[in-house]
Amino acid sequence: MIKAAIMGYGTVGAGVYEAVVTNQKVIAAEIGEALEVKRILDLRKFPGDPAEQLITDKFSDIEEDEEISLVVETMGGTTPAYEFVKAALLKGKHVVTSNKALVAAHGTELLQIARDKKVNFFFEAAVGGGIPVIRTLGTGYQGQVITEITGILNGTTNYILTRMDREGAEFGDVLADAQRLGYAERNPEADIEGHDTCRKIAILSSLVTGKEVNFEDVYTEGISKIDSTDFRYALELKASIKLVGAAQFAGNQVTVSVFPLLVSDENPLYAVQGVYNGIVIKGNLLGTTMLYGSGAGKLPTASAVLADMMEAAKHKNENVRFGWTAEKQAVTSHESEKHRYFVRLSGDAASLAAAKEQFEAERVIQLPGLEEVAIVSAPMTEFTYRERAAKVPNILAMIRAELSER
Amino acid sequence: MIKAAIMGYGTVGAGVYEAVVTNQKVIAAEIGEALEVKRILDLRKFPGDPAEQLITDKFSDIEEDEEISLVVETMGGTTPAYEFVKAALLKGKHVVTSNKALVAAHGTELLQIARDKKVNFFFEAAVGGGIPVIRTLGTGYQGQVITEITGILNGTTNYILTRMDREGAEFGDVLADAQRLGYAERNPEADIEGHDTCRKIAILSSLVTGKEVNFEDVYTEGISKIDSTDFRYALELKASIKLVGAAQFAGNQVTVSVFPLLVSDENPLYAVQGVYNGIVIKGNLLGTTMLYGSGAGKLPTASAVLADMMEAAKHKNENVRFGWTAEKQAVTSHESEKHRYFVRLSGDAASLAAAKEQFEAERVIQLPGLEEVAIVSAPMTEFTYRERAAKVPNILAMIRAELSER
Repeated sequence: MIKAAIMGYGTVGAGVYEAVVTNQKVIAAEIGEALEVKRILDLRKFPGDPAEQLITDKFSDIEEDEEISLVVETMGGTTPAYEFVKAALLKGKHVVTSNKALVAAHGTELLQIARDKKVNFFFEAAVGGGIPVIRTLGTGYQGQVITEITGILNGTTNYILTRMDREGAEFGDVLADAQRLGYAERNPEADIEGHDTCRKIAILSSLVTGKEVNFEDVYTEGISKIDSTDFRYALELKASIKLVGAAQFAGNQVTVSVFPLLVSDENPLYAVQGVYNGIVIKGNLLGTTMLYGSGAGKLPTASAVLADMMEAAKHKNENVRFGWTAEKQAVTSHESEKHRYFVRLSGDAASLAAAKEQFEAERVIQLPGLEEVAIVSAPMTEFTYRERAAKVPNILAMIRAELSER
Repeated sequence: MIKAAIMGYGTVGAGVYEAVVTNQKVIAAEIGEALEVKRILDLRKFPGDPAEQLITDKFSDIEEDEEISLVVETMGGTTPAYEFVKAALLKGKHVVTSNKALVAAHGTELLQIARDKKVNFFFEAAVGGGIPVIRTLGTGYQGQVITEITGILNGTTNYILTRMDREGAEFGDVLADAQRLGYAERNPEADIEGHDTCRKIAILSSLVTGKEVNFEDVYTEGISKIDSTDFRYALELKASIKLVGAAQFAGNQVTVSVFPLLVSDENPLYAVQGVYNGIVIKGNLLGTTMLYGSGAGKLPTASAVLADMMEAAKHKNENVRFGWTAEKQAVTSHESEKHRYFVRLSGDAASLAAAKEQFEAERVIQLPGLEEVAIVSAPMTEFTYRERAAKVPNILAMIRAELSER
């Protein structure tokens, strides 16, 4: 019998409890013994809840309980999650978390403590919700040199962008509606400004390099400036606009950034709609693969936590090789990243002429009823783009576009 | 140093050799020792090939060589692959294969021998090429009750159907072109009649149930009757036609079959085009996920073999829990499967009236210039469909359609 505790009885925590109860037979058959939740830490009471009797508001009830060998952290944020997780690991308990903020800020240290204590610190649910992207990176592509990850990693922004695409609606209106429907938080900044995606792509990049990629080194641009006109152009280009976390790995040259990207309908990310996530992974042998699924939600996220709990249960007395070391992975300047650029300009002839020349325009798009024009540039670095953009008057907006030819 | 042998130096075998050489540093770093190919079995000579010195035409050079602890089988077919693989396992060597015919026909026995000998018999590359679907089913969804798998598992047929969709071309013409381009074999029956997909979905179903699903129990229908008119209707329905292997798991009720399916553009399989494969997996917690990637090809397939080789190298003296037992999994009659049905009828009023009534038609589609009409039925079992179809005159064609509402 493995006894576990859950810290934080919100949506994900309650999902984990439900998952462990619902699938108890499968779980016991697979790990060879029963898995039971003994304690749940939450400051609130839950009268009438099936788990009511397990609730405690004292972390010491978990920390000091030697029967509890596995702790799930689903509180979110770093305070007090960091303190509690660290203490649990130091007590020799396995920890599984769904908390990307915690992993991005303190993962390196917590992974090291887990190694020292011969336990495990797992966080499948921190990236891609129910998509087993972290375990797949670890065991699915063994021996592979991963060259690129481009992921739609945030369901809220993908939901907003999908509705803007389908309905021709404006960002602000869809955001307000998403907030009303509970798909976006009242304070949506972490999602719409790309901070959530930033932490997730930093975690994936750290896993690929085996070194710490600091999320603060990741260039991050959100979606709040995208408007319905951008989507009109996207339609004309047989493309859509997605917020992506993108990382490229070429030996020690590593670029990681977050930005809205025009993706053509031949890119598998194009078909990732609504609250779904999709993560394209390229390797030097395997070519292009994509993992697709629910990036959030109570049970999908809980299912990722459960898979980690079982992995820990199967390796009770062993630290599974996983994660990254304290060594810092330098992130190459955003300026050296290469893209095409979709650039909107005011309609005057001088602006278009300058843009055509400076950006070596491969396409010029003029839509009916608009007093503006847009171009798609040749591939060039961010540095070159910025230098040349200074010479083009009246640029209205710029969105990066994928490099592939149409 | 781990010494390996490759049996069969065709496309995949040569890809494995190339993969091991190209990624030797990554491999050694990950498994903690070097991995080297010592011998390659092939009846042909390869003058000038980098591996020329390793080639032997005698299986005994591998079987009797105690230094060789890991054997890769990429010969295809069951003779002599079965005999050689069995002998290698009995000698206590790990075996990795890309051969779905071998696994479908003899997997149960070979898995048991591997268990008895405390070695491993892995076959990631047998299903989905470079997509790590087998390892993901094993470790990504731990604790999950898998309820459904629907996969585009054959690149050749998906290539043909994609071109028919895009170009409005006829099956025979695209097949001839695919043969010319090397995407289809001269004898294409195994692909186009669904036999390849059948073996693959049987393997995946065996992995999910942990029991042997006999591929001979799988209802299998290919794509040779699909024509350009079907795709005209599909376009009207905002759908496409895909050959799928489909399995549903509800306790001991297991259905497994292979057939062309009309999938709407909201289904992630819709976006799986050309030679790519896509496998939708549903679980009781995780909802819908999809794994997407190259289903064939030299290096993608080799990368799956390599991942298995490394997994075996990391578990040298241990049989990793994997596969299925000799227990037979009964497959519920195809007759009890439930679908919608897209049915084409000759244009006469009596036929349409009968079809509307018998099939409880939810849609009637009449395309300009055609002297026929089509309906989409209400959901019903295959048994019911067949009973009622007997009462409808002049049915021209039927394709199953997904159950989801538009």
